[in-house]
Amino acid sequence: MPRPRLDVLAIGNAIVDVIADTDDSFLDAEGLTKGSMRLIDAEEAERLYARMGAAREVSGGSAGNTAAGVAALGGRAGFIGQVAPDQLGQFYSHDLRSAGVEFTTPAADYGVSTARSMVLVTPDGHRTMNTFLGAAQHLPASALDEAQIADCAMLYLEGYLWDPETPRYAMIRAIEVARSAGRKVAFTLSDSFCVERHRDGFNTLIDEGRIDILFANEDEIQAMAGVPHLETAIAAYQGKVETLVVTRSEKGALATRAGERAQVPAEPVEHVVDTTGAGDLFAAGFLVGEARGLGLERSLKLGAIGAAEVIQHYGARPEADLKALAGNLLGQE
Amino acid sequence: MPRPRLDVLAIGNAIVDVIADTDDSFLDAEGLTKGSMRLIDAEEAERLYARMGAAREVSGGSAGNTAAGVAALGGRAGFIGQVAPDQLGQFYSHDLRSAGVEFTTPAADYGVSTARSMVLVTPDGHRTMNTFLGAAQHLPASALDEAQIADCAMLYLEGYLWDPETPRYAMIRAIEVARSAGRKVAFTLSDSFCVERHRDGFNTLIDEGRIDILFANEDEIQAMAGVPHLETAIAAYQGKVETLVVTRSEKGALATRAGERAQVPAEPVEHVVDTTGAGDLFAAGFLVGEARGLGLERSLKLGAIGAAEVIQHYGARPEADLKALAGNLLGQE
Repeated sequence: MPRPRLDVLAIGNAIVDVIADTDDSFLDAEGLTKGSMRLIDAEEAERLYARMGAAREVSGGSAGNTAAGVAALGGRAGFIGQVAPDQLGQFYSHDLRSAGVEFTTPAADYGVSTARSMVLVTPDGHRTMNTFLGAAQHLPASALDEAQIADCAMLYLEGYLWDPETPRYAMIRAIEVARSAGRKVAFTLSDSFCVERHRDGFNTLIDEGRIDILFANEDEIQAMAGVPHLETAIAAYQGKVETLVVTRSEKGALATRAGERAQVPAEPVEHVVDTTGAGDLFAAGFLVGEARGLGLERSLKLGAIGAAEVIQHYGARPEADLKALAGNLLGQE
Repeated sequence: MPRPRLDVLAIGNAIVDVIADTDDSFLDAEGLTKGSMRLIDAEEAERLYARMGAAREVSGGSAGNTAAGVAALGGRAGFIGQVAPDQLGQFYSHDLRSAGVEFTTPAADYGVSTARSMVLVTPDGHRTMNTFLGAAQHLPASALDEAQIADCAMLYLEGYLWDPETPRYAMIRAIEVARSAGRKVAFTLSDSFCVERHRDGFNTLIDEGRIDILFANEDEIQAMAGVPHLETAIAAYQGKVETLVVTRSEKGALATRAGERAQVPAEPVEHVVDTTGAGDLFAAGFLVGEARGLGLERSLKLGAIGAAEVIQHYGARPEADLKALAGNLLGQE
């Protein structure tokens, strides 16, 4: 079988991050749960935007960030997601393409704008996300380029895309196409609130054997297992997927596969500015490692390098030269 | 006479900065002059955007940055400029208002979009600006709120607004209104290329006594005077305006008024990230000092503090707490 054209093809909500500094008292006054992502409608988006501070706009979206990270590490990346034909959509498309990511999903005009997430960053670097899904929530299965999906080594899906109903069918169809072509399917649980919303759906995907690589952080895997103990949760899921990756913030990360278990510490970080994208860039590093057959431990290390870079600045896309940071770890292609 | 409602009312091009990292070879390949601002049309804007890297969007515009800086230092600031009724215009308006700046100029639909400047930042922190003026270049005199102008202690105008013809009349009218109300008029030469384009017009404004406070950097004042010697240029202009302020990058700044001359060194800076906005924030600090009657030296020092903050991050609006950085210098209102 010839090598697939793409290493990683990511599917997710195409979202521009609108990032503003804030403080805990603002989160309290707005009744927001620090560190969570909530979905809001257009009206609430306008109301909150009027109250929040001056902002930076940076392309984001969990899976889009991962695709940009894969490209930054020298991987061949693609992205599927839906923007509107507006200025934010042009901005989003430009950023992905200029990062070297193949992005061919047509913009679609549903009378709503490109999705945006108001990211409120507290002085401790935590981000509280308020997402208006706009055009992203209408991604139809018909927008998929099935030849592209069949020609990627790994299909990567974000749990967030399970929130709106239409893209669920697109995700399921994409998984079918990838598996029929003998490709690997990777899935991130996205966040523990997302798990609470969709535990049954996610468990069905896993139990039916549709997921090869599962990404979770501690909260998410425990929420899936319904237990407040990490090792119990890992034990419950490591047999259900070929590869299980669990990220643990400053405690590093671990992965299991076929009886093997590897772990790495977190990379040292001078100053945490904004944790947005840490999980996304971890996934990018790990998947690039997998694409190169580096084994669990080196793939985890690449993930930790990606996460450490992205939390040291605003925004969830890499700014430093990730390939240089990864150094010898990437080896020769 | 009662104290005016606003300390500083700034008039300028309402521009969103689209900031991307680049290197010298890209500037060479595009034939761009490092450190300059050039005006481009919509076609060139699209062409360059397609070639440049992933970007951050941050509200900018020279005078708008100054207004935001004045507000960040606790001054009462307003801004006059024209956006289009599009997403970039909403973004621009939100950022000014959330920074505490009074901004009431209506968005106007001329079939063009809100102005944007593609700011290419080289590793040395210098920025090369490529500006598509969009709606900003159509600011008409009729959009001025003359009661607002009459009620500001200092009117601040950017030389860049002299580039498009329509706003020139708006600027001249604004100066007339301000002077009739007994207010001070401050003017920045913006950049040396701008001076080359409009030397005669600027000299006419000055010779007619319409400018009270003139801001220039070394290149600009020398370009105005047509001499390559700083002291000769200062000597030529210090008698023509009540107050002359000359900024000298890492060499600090000086000001002259009625035979007095003051100077300050540059504030220490750990790492220069992006010099965009240095002059704008210098002006903000100086004008706040003037509004509080702090005298030339302390006003210069406030300017240096504003400039030092803004060059240590991407974007031309303050991010750190400028009031805290200014400390005792601001005194009590």
